[in-house]
Amino acid sequence: MYGRYTQELGVYAREEAARIREDGRHRRFISERSPSIKLLEYEKGRCVKCRTQKWMYGGLDSNVILQYLAWVTYPVVLISFSAGFTHIVAPQAAGSGIPEMKTILRGVVLKEYLTLKTFVAKVVGLTCALGSGLPLGKEGPFVHIASLCAALLCKFMSFFGGIYENESRNIEMLAAACAVGVGCCFAAPIGGVLFSIEVTSTFFAVRNYWRGFFAATFSAFIFRVLAVWNRDEETITALFKTRFRLDFPFDLQELPAFAVIGIASGFGGALFVYLNRLIVQFMRKQKTINKFLMKKRLLYPALVTVLISTLSFPPGFGQFMAGQLTQKETLVSFFDNRTWTKQGMTEDFNYDIHSAAWKHPQANVFVILVIFIVMKFWMSALATTLPVPCGAFMPVFVIGAAFGRLVGESMAAWFPEGINTDGTIYPIVPGGYAVVGAAALSGAVTHTVSTAVIVFELTGQISHILPIMIAVILANAVAQSLQPSIYDSIIRIKKLPYLPELGWGHHEKYNIRVEDIMVRNVRYITLNSTYRDLHEILLIANLKTVALVESAESMILLGSIERAQLQALLSQHVGRERRLEFIRDAERKRVSVVSTPSSEEGGPKVNHEVRFQISTEESSITPARPISPKPLKPALKRTSTAEKNIEIPTSNITHSLTYSSVEMFAPDFRPLKRVRISVLIEEWEEQQLDEQVNFNNCKIDPAPFQLVERTSLHKTHTIFSLLGLDHAYVTSIGRLIGVVSLRELRKAIEGSMTVKGVKVRPPLASFRDSGTSGTSSESEATELHKLWDRHSGLSIPREQQPNASDSDDKSQ
Amino acid sequence: MYGRYTQELGVYAREEAARIREDGRHRRFISERSPSIKLLEYEKGRCVKCRTQKWMYGGLDSNVILQYLAWVTYPVVLISFSAGFTHIVAPQAAGSGIPEMKTILRGVVLKEYLTLKTFVAKVVGLTCALGSGLPLGKEGPFVHIASLCAALLCKFMSFFGGIYENESRNIEMLAAACAVGVGCCFAAPIGGVLFSIEVTSTFFAVRNYWRGFFAATFSAFIFRVLAVWNRDEETITALFKTRFRLDFPFDLQELPAFAVIGIASGFGGALFVYLNRLIVQFMRKQKTINKFLMKKRLLYPALVTVLISTLSFPPGFGQFMAGQLTQKETLVSFFDNRTWTKQGMTEDFNYDIHSAAWKHPQANVFVILVIFIVMKFWMSALATTLPVPCGAFMPVFVIGAAFGRLVGESMAAWFPEGINTDGTIYPIVPGGYAVVGAAALSGAVTHTVSTAVIVFELTGQISHILPIMIAVILANAVAQSLQPSIYDSIIRIKKLPYLPELGWGHHEKYNIRVEDIMVRNVRYITLNSTYRDLHEILLIANLKTVALVESAESMILLGSIERAQLQALLSQHVGRERRLEFIRDAERKRVSVVSTPSSEEGGPKVNHEVRFQISTEESSITPARPISPKPLKPALKRTSTAEKNIEIPTSNITHSLTYSSVEMFAPDFRPLKRVRISVLIEEWEEQQLDEQVNFNNCKIDPAPFQLVERTSLHKTHTIFSLLGLDHAYVTSIGRLIGVVSLRELRKAIEGSMTVKGVKVRPPLASFRDSGTSGTSSESEATELHKLWDRHSGLSIPREQQPNASDSDDKSQ
Repeated sequence: MYGRYTQELGVYAREEAARIREDGRHRRFISERSPSIKLLEYEKGRCVKCRTQKWMYGGLDSNVILQYLAWVTYPVVLISFSAGFTHIVAPQAAGSGIPEMKTILRGVVLKEYLTLKTFVAKVVGLTCALGSGLPLGKEGPFVHIASLCAALLCKFMSFFGGIYENESRNIEMLAAACAVGVGCCFAAPIGGVLFSIEVTSTFFAVRNYWRGFFAATFSAFIFRVLAVWNRDEETITALFKTRFRLDFPFDLQELPAFAVIGIASGFGGALFVYLNRLIVQFMRKQKTINKFLMKKRLLYPALVTVLISTLSFPPGFGQFMAGQLTQKETLVSFFDNRTWTKQGMTEDFNYDIHSAAWKHPQANVFVILVIFIVMKFWMSALATTLPVPCGAFMPVFVIGAAFGRLVGESMAAWFPEGINTDGTIYPIVPGGYAVVGAAALSGAVTHTVSTAVIVFELTGQISHILPIMIAVILANAVAQSLQPSIYDSIIRIKKLPYLPELGWGHHEKYNIRVEDIMVRNVRYITLNSTYRDLHEILLIANLKTVALVESAESMILLGSIERAQLQALLSQHVGRERRLEFIRDAERKRVSVVSTPSSEEGGPKVNHEVRFQISTEESSITPARPISPKPLKPALKRTSTAEKNIEIPTSNITHSLTYSSVEMFAPDFRPLKRVRISVLIEEWEEQQLDEQVNFNNCKIDPAPFQLVERTSLHKTHTIFSLLGLDHAYVTSIGRLIGVVSLRELRKAIEGSMTVKGVKVRPPLASFRDSGTSGTSSESEATELHKLWDRHSGLSIPREQQPNASDSDDKSQ
Repeated sequence: MYGRYTQELGVYAREEAARIREDGRHRRFISERSPSIKLLEYEKGRCVKCRTQKWMYGGLDSNVILQYLAWVTYPVVLISFSAGFTHIVAPQAAGSGIPEMKTILRGVVLKEYLTLKTFVAKVVGLTCALGSGLPLGKEGPFVHIASLCAALLCKFMSFFGGIYENESRNIEMLAAACAVGVGCCFAAPIGGVLFSIEVTSTFFAVRNYWRGFFAATFSAFIFRVLAVWNRDEETITALFKTRFRLDFPFDLQELPAFAVIGIASGFGGALFVYLNRLIVQFMRKQKTINKFLMKKRLLYPALVTVLISTLSFPPGFGQFMAGQLTQKETLVSFFDNRTWTKQGMTEDFNYDIHSAAWKHPQANVFVILVIFIVMKFWMSALATTLPVPCGAFMPVFVIGAAFGRLVGESMAAWFPEGINTDGTIYPIVPGGYAVVGAAALSGAVTHTVSTAVIVFELTGQISHILPIMIAVILANAVAQSLQPSIYDSIIRIKKLPYLPELGWGHHEKYNIRVEDIMVRNVRYITLNSTYRDLHEILLIANLKTVALVESAESMILLGSIERAQLQALLSQHVGRERRLEFIRDAERKRVSVVSTPSSEEGGPKVNHEVRFQISTEESSITPARPISPKPLKPALKRTSTAEKNIEIPTSNITHSLTYSSVEMFAPDFRPLKRVRISVLIEEWEEQQLDEQVNFNNCKIDPAPFQLVERTSLHKTHTIFSLLGLDHAYVTSIGRLIGVVSLRELRKAIEGSMTVKGVKVRPPLASFRDSGTSGTSSESEATELHKLWDRHSGLSIPREQQPNASDSDDKSQ
C-alpha cells in the first residue's frame, strides 16, 4: 500500500508540476489584467485535484479499505495544510472575506486584511481547501482576493503618484474589485456587480456602478475566453448552460410550486445562518474543547474533514447521497432538463454518468435527494466554520438546487403527463425547479435579490425569470424577518466594527437621541495648551483625531487635528533634532565655563525625570482635561484599556522620547558626563514641555462633523452610514459637549433592537416615553423653552446686553 | 369620402367602446394593484389604434390620395388632441417625466408634477400620442405615471395615518414606482430596477433595492399574466422573444464587430442628444417662429406630424424605410435570427409579412436600412420635442436595432459561409447584432449600462451577454465623454433645480470654498424678535425655513423654524380668534362707556394702517435684519424677484390679515362704528405686533445642517447630494455667517465646469490659485493662524480671561 501511495503521490506531483507550468504560461500573457486572472487558476487547479482524487479512488477499485483511506487522507491532508498555512502566514485570511470587505467599504480601516501576506495565504489556502472536495464555496474568497489585488495594485500605483493617492479612490477601487470577484467566480458580470453592491454597501454611489460593470465584464470575459483558448469550450457560453425549452418554459399553474420553493428556502436559509452561528458559539463556549483545540489547531479541521469525507464515501453512506459527484457535477445533474422519476416521460434516466449517481437499486430518488439535502445542510454549515479560506455561497447554492429538484421531481411525479394547457401538453421541467431553488436558497442565506441575476448568467437562460424573481423575493422576505444574513452574522461573531442596520420599518419608534449615547468626557486641546498637555493626550487617549477648542471655559469647537499631526508637532519641538541642538549648545557652554557646577541642584530634576518616566502610570495627576470634574474618569471609556496596553501602541511617543534621551548619548559621552548632560536635558525638556503649543504649521480640519444633542438615533445612523464617519462631535451652540463614535452608535442600536422578543433600550431613553408620541418631525423639533433653559443654563461668559432696543443697533 | 370617413370613425368608436369595456373588466378584478395595471391599458389601446389605422389604410387600397389623407389625418388628429388636452389640463405632463422624477427624487419638491390633473393629462395624452404611430416612446411617461400613482396612493393612504405620513417614506415609494414604470413597460423587472436607479439616483440606499424589485416583479408579472388571460400568449414569456441558437451564439472573431457597434452607437447617441437639444434651442431662439407658435400652439405638433407621416407614407417614400411597420413589428423583424441578404444561407427571406417590408424591388436591403436609420434618427429627435407625453427610449432602441442589423447583415454578406471554427461552420446571426445595437444605442443616449439587462429580459435570451456588455460599456464611454444624457440635457433645457454632477476625475482641482458661494445676507429671527419682525420676514423672504439666532449681536445659530410654523405663530397672535376676542372686549367696553371718545386720536392710527397696508412696498424701511449694514441689499438674492412677485405666494399672511381685518366686521357693524372699531383694531394690531414673539409652542429644528466657510465645493456637493439638502447654514464657531442653497451650489458648479473648453470660475476663487496646489486633504485643512486671526477678528463680546493658569480651573 505504501508503494502505491507513493506512486500516487508521484503522479500527483507530476500533475501538479504540469499545472504550475500551465499557470506560468497563463501568467505570462495575461499579466496586464492580474486581478481577474489570478482567480482563474483555482478553477483549474481544483479540477486537476478533483480529478486526482477521482483517479485515486478509481484506481483502488479492488480494496474498499484502501479506497476509503485514499478517499479520506486526501482531503484531510489538504485541509490541514490549508488551515496550517493560513494560520502561520496570515490568520485573517481564513473565512469568507465578504464581511471584512463590507466593513472596509463602510470606511473602517482594517489594514491587516489587505496585505500581501493575506493575499498569499488566501490564494494558497483557498486552492487547497477547494481541492479537498468538502462543501466549501469560493465566491467570498474570490471577492477578498480581488480586493487584495486592487489594494496591492493601488499601493503599487501610488508610487507613481496621481489619482491613486486619494483615499476615496481606493474605496472605489475596492468596490469595483468586489464586483470583479463575484463576476469572475460565476462568469456573471451583471449579477456580480449587483451581488457585490447588495452584500457590501449600505448606500451606493451610482457613479461607481459603471466602473464595477466595466471591471466585472472584462474579468468575466477573460475568464470565459481562457476556457475557449484552452479548448474546453467552443465559444463563450455560460458556465452551467441549461437547455430548457424556450417556447413554453413553465405553466402558470406551476407558479404556486415555485412560491412554495421560495418560502421553504426562506426558512431554510434562516436555519442555515442560525446553525452556522450555533456551531461557532458552541465551539467557543465549551471551554475544555476550546482550550484543547487552541493547542492543537489542526485537529478540528482534520476531525471535521474526516467526518464529512467518511459520510460521503461512495461505497459507504455516500451511495445514498451521490457522494462521488463534485459540486460542479452535482449542479450539472440538477440543472438537467429531463426528469429522473420513472413515472415521467423518460424512462431511461441514467443516460449519463452524473445522473446515474442519483439512481440507487434500493432507494427511491426522492429518498436520496432528501438525504442529500439533510446531510449537505449540516455538513456545509459545519464546513464553513473551518479556519480555512472558504465561502458559503456555493454549498448553499447546491443545496437549494437539490431542494428545487426535489420539488420538481415531485411535481413531475404528480403530473406525469405534464400540465394540460389549450390542448398542448408540456411535461414538467424539474431542472427549472432546481434553478429556482438554487437562486432562492442562496438569496435567503445572503439576503440578496441578485442571486436571480447570477442564476440567469450562470445558466445562460432567462426564461424562468418570473418564477425565480418571485421565489427569491419570498425567500428574502421570510429569511430577513428571521435571521441576519450570513455575512452580518459573521460580522457579529467576529465583532467587526460595523454598524448594524436599523430595524425594519419601526425606526420611527426609536426615541433615542445623541445626548443619550454620546461620551461627554471628550479629550481635547485648547489654543493655549502646552506641549505637556499634547504629550499626555497622545499618551492617554487612543484617538485618531483630537478636538481643538478655543479654551476650556468657552469650549467653542474650532476644529480637529489628526493624531499624526500632533505627534509631528511634539517631535518637532522636543525631538531628536532640537535635542541635539540643545546638547551642542550645552557642550559649548560647558567648554567655556568648565568649572561651573550644574547651575541648579539636580535633585528636583531627577524627581522630574522620574515623574516623566512614570507618567504613563501617573497620568491621572494632570489628566488631559476631561470635561467632567472627576479627573480619573477614563476618556472615551477606552482609557482603562488604553492604560493597560499603554506599552503597545499608544505610547510610541514616550518610548521614542525616553529611548532617545537615553540612547543618543551613549556613543558620545562618558557615564559621568552623561548624567550631568541628561540632567540638563531633562531640565530643558521640562521647559520645552511647559511652552505653549505653536499650532502655526499644523493642519487643522476646520469642519469636523458635528451633531447636536437632540439629533435622533435614526438620523445619526443615516449620516454615519452615508458619509462613512468614524466619529462626530456633538456641539451645542458651538460648544463641544460630547463625541459619538461608531462604537457608541453600534451599542445603542444593538441595545434598542429586539433581542429575543424583549426590547432592550439605553437607560436614558426611557424617561422620554410618556411625552413624545408624535410623528418623527415632531419628535425631532424641540420646544424653545427647553432650548432656552439649556442655553441660559450654560455659562458662556458674555456681556449681558439689554434685550430692548435691538431694532436699532443691529449693525454689528 | 366624407361618408367613408364617418363610417370609419363609427368603426373606430365601436372598437374604442369595446376597449373601454374590456378595460373596465380588467379594472374590476385587479384593483388591488393599480399602479401597474393602469399602465397596461395603453399597450392595448395603442394596438387597437394601430390596427384601426392599418385597416383604414388597407381599406382605401384603390385610391392613393385617399390613402394618403387617411394616413396623415389620423396621426395629426391624435397628436393635436394629445397636445391640446395636455396643454389645457396640465402642461407639465408633456415630455418624458424622467428628468422631473430625477429632480424630485433628489429631494426638490415639484408638487405640480404629482397631481391628479397631471395624471389624467399624462394618461390621455400618452395614449393618443402612442396611437399616432410617430416614433415616440413610452418608458419615460410610464415612469411618470407610476410615480403619479404612487404619490396619489400615498396621499390617499395618509388619510389613514401611519407610515405614509413620513416624507422620506414617500421618496422611497417614488423610487419603487420608477422601477415599476420601467419594469412593466418592458416586462423587465430587473432591468427596470437598475435602469430606474441609474437614471434617477445619485446615491442609492440599498435597503430600497428590495422594495423596487418586489414592486417591479409584480408589475411585470401582472403585465404578462394579462397577456396569457387575453389568450395572446400561451404562457408567460418575453415580450420580444428571440430564438437564437444556444450552443454557439457567436464566435470570438465576431467580437470586433460588436465593439464597432458599441463605439459607433456611442457617437450616435451623443449626436442624438445634441440634435434633440439643438432643435429645442433653435425653436426657442427664432423669436418670430416662437411668437407665432406660442399663439397657435397646436400648429407645431400638427406640422411635425404631417412631415413625419408624409415621409413614412408606404406608397411614397415610406417604401424605402418600411413605413408601414409599427415600432413593435420593426423590432420583431430586426430580432429575427435569419439573414435577409441573398448571399446568406437562406434565399427566401420574405417568409413573413414583417420581413417582407425590408425587401424592395429597386433597392438593396442595405440601402433601405441606411435610409431607415437616417430618417428615423432625425424624425425621433424631432418628434420627442413635441409638447405631448412621450419618451425617447423606444425610438432610439429601434434605431439602434436597425444599426445593429445593418452591421449584422454586412457581416453575413462578408462571411456568407459563416465563420469557421474547428471544422463546424456556424452562419452569422444578424438578429444578435440587432440586439447588441439596440442595447448600445439606448445605453449611449441614456448613459446607462442596464439597457443590457433590459434587452435580456425583453428578448428572453441571455446568450449574447458578453458582446452586449462590451458594446454597452464602449457606447457609454464614448457618449459620456461627449454629451450629457438625454435626461440631463432635458433638465438643463427645462432649467429644473437639479445639481449637475461634478466633472469626471478632476474634482481635486476645484478650489472653491463655501465662503465663495454662500449668501452672506441671511434672513433670520432672534430670540427677542417682535411679531412685526416675523411678519416682515415672512413678507419679504420666500424661504422654506428661517434661521433662529440667539441675538443680532452674537449671531449664534440656535436652530431653524419652518415657514408654516412662523405663520402659525403669527396668526395665533394676531389672527381671527384673538381679533374677535378683542372686538368682543372692545364692544363690552364700548357698551359700558358709550359716550367716551375713542381713547386716542385716530389720525396716526390711519397712518399706521396705511403703513401697514403698503408695507409690502415699504419693507426696506425695517428690513428683516440683514447682517450686512446695507439695509436694501436683497436677502438670498431672491428678494428682488420676491418683491416683484410679492402678490403671488409670499404675502399670504398679509393678505389674509388685511382681508380679515376688513371683511370680518361687515356683517356685524354699521359703517360709522366700523371705522371706529377698525381704528381700535389697528391700534391693537400695532400693539400686538410690537410684542416679543413667544416661541414656546413653536417647533424648532435644533440641528439644521451646518457647513463651515472653508468646506470645499466638492464636499458640499457630496453632502447635498447624499442628504438631499435644499440649503445649509454656514457657521463660523457657532455664529451664523451665511447660507448656501441648491441654487448657489448649482451656479458654482456650472460656473466652474468647462464650458466649451474655457474654464469659467467664480470670481472669488481665483485669488487662491497661487498658493494651494497640494492634495485635497491639505487644501481642506487650514492653518491655525488664519483661523485664529479670523476668530479674534470677530467681535464676540466675551470676557478676556487670562490665558495662564488654565490647567487648574478647567472644571467648568
